[in-house]
Parts: sequence; structure tokens; C-alpha cells
Amino acid sequence: MIIRKTCTPESLFSSDRFSVTYRLFGREQDARAKAEDICIEQTVEFPDDLVPEGVIRDHVFGRIESLQPWNTESFKAVISYAVEITAGELTQFLNVVFGNISIKPGIRVEQLDLPESLLCCFRGPRFGREGIRRLVGVPKRPLLSTALKPMGLSSKELADLAYQFALGGMDIIKDDHGLSNQCCSPFEERISLCAEAVQRGNKESSQRTIYVANITAPNADVMKRARIAKNAGAGGLMVAPGIVGLDVMRELADDDSIALPILTHPALQGSFVTSQNGISHGVIFGQLARLAGADATIFPNFGGRFSFSREECKEIVKGTSVPMGLIKTIFPAPGGGMSIDKVPDMLETYGQDLIFLIGGGLFRHSPDLIENCRHFRRMVEQLQ
Amino acid sequence: MIIRKTCTPESLFSSDRFSVTYRLFGREQDARAKAEDICIEQTVEFPDDLVPEGVIRDHVFGRIESLQPWNTESFKAVISYAVEITAGELTQFLNVVFGNISIKPGIRVEQLDLPESLLCCFRGPRFGREGIRRLVGVPKRPLLSTALKPMGLSSKELADLAYQFALGGMDIIKDDHGLSNQCCSPFEERISLCAEAVQRGNKESSQRTIYVANITAPNADVMKRARIAKNAGAGGLMVAPGIVGLDVMRELADDDSIALPILTHPALQGSFVTSQNGISHGVIFGQLARLAGADATIFPNFGGRFSFSREECKEIVKGTSVPMGLIKTIFPAPGGGMSIDKVPDMLETYGQDLIFLIGGGLFRHSPDLIENCRHFRRMVEQLQ
Repeated sequence: MIIRKTCTPESLFSSDRFSVTYRLFGREQDARAKAEDICIEQTVEFPDDLVPEGVIRDHVFGRIESLQPWNTESFKAVISYAVEITAGELTQFLNVVFGNISIKPGIRVEQLDLPESLLCCFRGPRFGREGIRRLVGVPKRPLLSTALKPMGLSSKELADLAYQFALGGMDIIKDDHGLSNQCCSPFEERISLCAEAVQRGNKESSQRTIYVANITAPNADVMKRARIAKNAGAGGLMVAPGIVGLDVMRELADDDSIALPILTHPALQGSFVTSQNGISHGVIFGQLARLAGADATIFPNFGGRFSFSREECKEIVKGTSVPMGLIKTIFPAPGGGMSIDKVPDMLETYGQDLIFLIGGGLFRHSPDLIENCRHFRRMVEQLQ
Repeated sequence: MIIRKTCTPESLFSSDRFSVTYRLFGREQDARAKAEDICIEQTVEFPDDLVPEGVIRDHVFGRIESLQPWNTESFKAVISYAVEITAGELTQFLNVVFGNISIKPGIRVEQLDLPESLLCCFRGPRFGREGIRRLVGVPKRPLLSTALKPMGLSSKELADLAYQFALGGMDIIKDDHGLSNQCCSPFEERISLCAEAVQRGNKESSQRTIYVANITAPNADVMKRARIAKNAGAGGLMVAPGIVGLDVMRELADDDSIALPILTHPALQGSFVTSQNGISHGVIFGQLARLAGADATIFPNFGGRFSFSREECKEIVKGTSVPMGLIKTIFPAPGGGMSIDKVPDMLETYGQDLIFLIGGGLFRHSPDLIENCRHFRRMVEQLQ
């Protein structure tokens, strides 16, 4: 990493800065006041008039690079920060981008623009879109994915489902995000039975379906469960960074001894995107997910039982693929109350580089689960 | 912990349930639909009509215990869940309380009511109000606290401030939450100089001021920095669970080899409390902070540069002290743009059991920082 850990006072700060685009709600005067406030609140958090001239004011303060109308109710402010104030840490980076001002209304993070000197602190996704395609052996078409549920089934029942999903031609079979280590299906038992079931299905179908274990867990157990899952033959991991912390996902992604693709789940992150205060869909489910090493990002599809609009979903797709130095592009994985008949509309919106995530809807088409999966897959293959 | 990890199918679920009070915005019909949706979304996440009769429907589903008008625009729904679906994990508990529904608008978590069988999974604060009072040797009056800043000062400059604050009679001197491991003040250097400065001040003043190190850091560094801080003589730790994850704070609090009081900082948690979607001030800064082991909870005072109302701050105080089995009560620590002249009003609102957190405002009264601290302390002592 470029950021110097020891340095003489004269050489503390490079000229490298990263930029955050904020949307500031209110009239121009309010927006300007908010922008000026952000420059201080997110850095020195100290009364402006008490800060002497010099290095702190010249380098540590945030700097308003531009302020323009966004629309009739909001302004677009680009604010830059010295890369050094992040200490090269994802945690302190998050703090600078939106730590204290998360508590102030009418401020929304809309975009991150990071120079190479900051990007190189983060390895990002290990697999990304290409890596996942290679793993499942699907070079072009959208990937098909489903979830093992409902909570309350035994591990054996979940494994039976996994086997049928594998035979039906799903590419990715994941735990529901609510399955952790409940007595009805203890973690080790579930992972071992489900991984085995998918491998058995693969032998019969000659596919390369992967089983993705949910390892959202108490902090000390995240890595332990990741290793258990890997040893049991799981082909991927799912984690909810809103619950365990975004840097825990980054640590997981960076660990060479695990080296499995990671799906990020949006649980507990919703409050960031549901009001005028927060972080945009594209940043939280796209850019930040990538920076923290996710290979695919799960989010609620438009028109499902959640409230995301088609436009917001497109923003997420943009966040998964906008150039960010060497940080790989990742798969959008829209799901949430999806049904098979939405496939054509989704292909039109997302293109081919997506993971269809369909849960309960797979049980609807006919009583034959394997046949329902095959029907889903045929639809996707035909519509390419 | 009471929750059974292995059990026969017949004995999977006890009759113990915990309750979450949600505020649901909308008309009665909408509120009822939302309540019914929560019961499924937060548990089985599966189409209602596809779930067979039996244990899943009887136990795993959430259950509406009551639904009443809150006011003209919202309803109060109490929904109960089987304690077993949390697996005794703070992470899965958070997921059940607000995971997926964080993505749905108009739902706010207002209160947690937890039975002993769930509470006993969590040790809670190690010190709490009484423990912190014992540490600093202040049995009755409000505690006085300040922050080392601005970012950009050298470790030596920060330590000089710490020394003056200690001489001035502050009880708790903490790092600003933006100080991590920047080149202008690397972590180990800062912690060692500041801890030493406070100890030197204590010798001269015969006080028991504690220095609180900010250990908000990449996941693998949180525990490392906690140990470095303890070994250097820090008397407490500060962490922002919105950045590192709430369970990381719990792990820290539970670690007997560290055993220092913990201040929780609200950075990045603001979006939960700024709209109709989210978690109430009392739950996120009170009940959840306690459950995750904080001994004091920092939040923006009413009337400061943030937007919390007096009523919202009172809710936090309630969250810090509402009965929760053996989980200790913790200190509210209001701060954020505070000035000395707000002390009387704050004492009237919060009572004696609080930590005054005053930062830049301490520099305003006169050019003599030590004298300003003493003035602050005299004001608090006189107003008891």
C-alpha cells in the first residue's frame, strides 16, 4: 500500500485525494452550508475558527470540488479528502465517507471516485464475474440461483431440496440468510449434508453447481464456519455485511486459505437506502460491496415484494461494473419474491451478466420441483 | 445458554418467545398487512400458502401479539418470535429483529422485550454505570469527558492536550473517533504517549482520570489494538459498532483478558434513526448497545449541531436503564457541538447519571485549557 505509515512532518500528505459525490437536499444556501459542514465534520470535527492555518486546514479538511443543482430539491456536491486520512483502512474510509454525517438528515452518498493510491489498499473480489463463470462453467448466459428454505426444515430436508435443485440445473444453491446454527439445522450438519447433496447431484447431471453456505455469524465464528464450509465441499460463502460488518467480509475475501466466492446479502442495510439520508443503492450494493470483496451482490428485484425501482436496480448494476482500477466487476443477483414469469423483463433490464435468484417462486410452476428448475433454466436459455 | 443445540424433533422449540414492538406507518389495513408480512419475512421468508401446517407454522413464524393505533399516522405492533430461531447469536438476533425488513419502508423497531432464556445468551456490559463510577472514583456527580482532536495533530500534541485535560479534572479523555492509525499519529505511538500523559496528570492531580483509546479498526486489528491499548495503560476503549459490526463490540466486551470499559460511538448508525424506516434511538443507542456490551453510549445531544430532539435523547436514556434481566444499566454520553453553558439544561433533562462529552467547546471559554476544564467541572459540581 502506498500510504506511508511513518513519515516526516513535511511529507505527511501526498496530493492524492479521493472524491465522494453527495446529494444534499434543500435550497442552495442550505446545500452549501451542508457541504461546508461535511468538510469539517468528517475530518477534524472541530470548530472551524479554532483550527490554525497550515497542514490541517490545507490537507486534513475536506474540500468542496464542485456544487451544482441536482434537481429542484437537491444539490450535487463533490467533496474530496486526502487519501492519508483513511489510514488505508476500509473502516476509517467508511467513517470519512459517512460516519458522523449519517446522523444528519438530507445527506446521501451517491458515488465514490477513488485514486489508484487508495484502491491499491483493497484487493476487492477474488473471483468477480469472470471467476464465478469459470467456476460454474457457464461462459455467457445468466446464472441461475435459488435458496434453501424455509427455516424450520431439518438439515436432511434442506439437503433433499439441494439435491433436487442441483438436478434441476441451478448453478448456485445457497442457504437462506436466516439459517445460521439453529437447533433444527445445526451449521456443521447442514453444511455437510447440503454440500454432499449438491456434489451427488453434480455427478448425475455432469454440472458444476456450487453450494453456498451462509456464514453470517458471531464474529469469532465467521472464519471458523468459512473453513468448515470449505472443508465440507461448499463452493461459496454468503455473508450479510450489514450484520457482521463490511470489513469482516473484506477479511474473508482476502484470506488465501479460504479463497471461495462470496455472495453479499443486504440484511440490515436497507435503512441506508430508504430515505434522503443514507447511501445510494449503487454505492452500498455495488461499489462498497466490491471494495469489500464480494463477488456477487444480492438485492431485491424491482417489482417484487420489496420497494426498489427499476432505476435503483440499474444503479446497482452500474455500481457492480463502474471502473475502479483493478477491482473486478461483480454479479448483480436480484431476488426477493421473484417468479419465473419475470425472467424476460429482467433480461431486458439487466442484460446477460446477472444471477437470477429465485426462492419460493420455484415451487409454484408445478408440483415437480426438478421440472420447475428445468423450466426456469430453459426459459433463460431460450431468451438469450 | 438455555437454547438447545441438539434436540429431538419433538423438543425443538420451548414456549419462550421474545417480543419486538414495531411502529408501522400507514392506515390500519396497511399496518396489518405489514405486521403479517414481518411475521414471515423475518423468519421463513417463504410463500405463506406453501408452508405446511405443523411446527414451522406453529413455532418458526413470527406471531402478532397485538396491533393498536400509535397515533393518527401509525400503528404499534408487538410481534413475538421463538427464542430458538436466534440460535443464541447476536448476529442472527439482529437479523430476526430487522434484517430483511430494513429494506421495506415505514417499519421502525421501537422496543425489545427479551425473556431470561434469551438474555442469558448475552453477558452485556462488564462495568455499566456503577463499574465506571468505581473506576474513576466518582460516586454521584455526572462524569466529565472530552476528546483528543483535531485529526492532523501529532501524537505528542495530542498527548499534551491529554495532560492538560487530566490536570483540568476531566474523568474520561477519549480519542476522537476519526483517529485510527494515520501517519500523523500512528496508533501505537499515540496510545502510548496519551496513556502516559494521563497517568502523569493523575499523579499530579491525585485523580483517576482514564484515557480511552479508539480501536475502531479493520476486523483483525480490533483485538490487537485493544491489547496494545491495555498494555500501554489505557483505561477504556471506544469502538463504533456501525463501522466494525455490533458483534465485534460484544466479543470485545466478553474478552476477560481485556476487561476494559467500552464506549460505543454512533458513527455510520445515523441512517437507522433518521426516517420512518429504522430502529428507534432508544433501541439502537440504548438496548442494543447494552446487549452488545457497551458501558457508555455516545450520541448527539439535543440542541447541538445534530438533529436529535430532547424527546429522542430521553428515549436513549430510557434504553440505557430499562430493566433487561441481569444486563447492567449504562451511561448515556451526550455530546456533539456541546458548550459549557448547556450544562444546567442537560442536568435537568438527564439527571446525574450521565457523561458530559464536550470537545471543541472546551477551548472557547478562555485561552487557558486547564482553567476551562476546571470551570466546566465547577459548574457541574455546583449544579448537583
